[in-house]
Amino acid sequence: MSKFIVIGERISVTAPSINRAFAEKDPEPILARAKQQLEAGAYYLDVNIGPAESNGEELMQWAVKLLQGEFDNVPLALDTANMKAIEAGIAVYNRAKGKPIVNSADASGRIEYVDLAAANDAIVIALCNGDGIAKDNDERMAYCQTLLERGMEHGMEPTDLWFDPLFLVTKGMQDKQMDILECIKMISDMGLNSTGGLSNNSNGMPKHIRPIMDSAMVAMAMMQGLTSAIVNPNDLRLMETIKSCDVIKNNTLYADSYLEL
Amino acid sequence: MSKFIVIGERISVTAPSINRAFAEKDPEPILARAKQQLEAGAYYLDVNIGPAESNGEELMQWAVKLLQGEFDNVPLALDTANMKAIEAGIAVYNRAKGKPIVNSADASGRIEYVDLAAANDAIVIALCNGDGIAKDNDERMAYCQTLLERGMEHGMEPTDLWFDPLFLVTKGMQDKQMDILECIKMISDMGLNSTGGLSNNSNGMPKHIRPIMDSAMVAMAMMQGLTSAIVNPNDLRLMETIKSCDVIKNNTLYADSYLEL
Repeated sequence: MSKFIVIGERISVTAPSINRAFAEKDPEPILARAKQQLEAGAYYLDVNIGPAESNGEELMQWAVKLLQGEFDNVPLALDTANMKAIEAGIAVYNRAKGKPIVNSADASGRIEYVDLAAANDAIVIALCNGDGIAKDNDERMAYCQTLLERGMEHGMEPTDLWFDPLFLVTKGMQDKQMDILECIKMISDMGLNSTGGLSNNSNGMPKHIRPIMDSAMVAMAMMQGLTSAIVNPNDLRLMETIKSCDVIKNNTLYADSYLEL
Repeated sequence: MSKFIVIGERISVTAPSINRAFAEKDPEPILARAKQQLEAGAYYLDVNIGPAESNGEELMQWAVKLLQGEFDNVPLALDTANMKAIEAGIAVYNRAKGKPIVNSADASGRIEYVDLAAANDAIVIALCNGDGIAKDNDERMAYCQTLLERGMEHGMEPTDLWFDPLFLVTKGMQDKQMDILECIKMISDMGLNSTGGLSNNSNGMPKHIRPIMDSAMVAMAMMQGLTSAIVNPNDLRLMETIKSCDVIKNNTLYADSYLEL
């Protein structure tokens, strides 16, 4: 088994400082967050430039060159609703450390993101989702199948689709959490990769509880075969848990210093 | 599903202060540790009086009456190699909060502990173990079967045998950890209860790492269906993780104050 892949979520226009940095093409806040995340153990960095309708192509190329130039071709997830911006980003992307990730396709209005990934030999995050949230795992797995077939028709390796079951908010959908975990196992049992915005489960909880709940969730999800997650790698407890589960799963060799590696 | 059951492990002759307290029949250190564990969320308390060959019967009765008298009939696991001491303890045990637990039987030299539990309408911790450590899950499940049949022949409910897969030391048996977790799932899939000395997995690790590793392990084990564990409830991180997994599994209802309950 290979090591769990942490995709750092913190370079995102949803953060005001990063939003401003993208608007002003100011490298400093972006590089600072990249460094923090990589030092904490992120392998991929998500680059969420927002809708970026007017200047997306140029902006994504700027961000890709900035980050890969500064951090030895760090692999990136290109995250925007502007498909041309993703293509433009891939055009200047260096694959030395890993394929680019297209974030994200779904089985409905965003299914063409699969085609985009296929045409560019990229990985794609494939949301097990159509119009609205899936009501059960039959529906999630039907979407998974649709996305998988679409990718394979276009020549993708099945393992280059990273299926996202969509983590649900515990406050309000507590009784659905085990469904999501079962869905991860179904994906894993098919030999497929998975990912997701795991911290959505603790959305709305008091701030001090979120790392505790997210850590419990990631350990349970890793037990079920989750292979990656889009998270805040500067959540120390979460990263300690991921590294420990990697030891338990024998994905990494135990050493007394394993938390520092 | 019912809530995970924490059995507090800290009243044990392996702790020098408790060893001395049992030798001198000094209630204070025993009551102090009982209080700490109950306040931290233990439901059962394990009472390990050691081999207690000479005075076991009297000593166990003293301990049972002491603890149940002080803490409103707290349910107890009676833990000694002296079978007569366990029987004597049960004779004075109040079942208002739960049956006594006999700790422990195995499928070899200690199989008569199953009979003892059956004769006394008690729960028994049933180690999936014969002579020496089982080499794989076929062997573990064969022992499980032997113990289950023994209990049922003697009229026990299958759910009154709490099967212990025997957690293994990660340092030295890292590649066997997933076997133990799979074994828990096999037990759970049979509708049976399970338990174990979970912190054995982190034996020999630096002290600051153990709560981190134990928390990762308990979350993975609860995902697999572990229903109870014999642990140190004063390990805050571990208890936070157990409570969080109980929320994720919908065993307890989420409230912002769930960690304080």
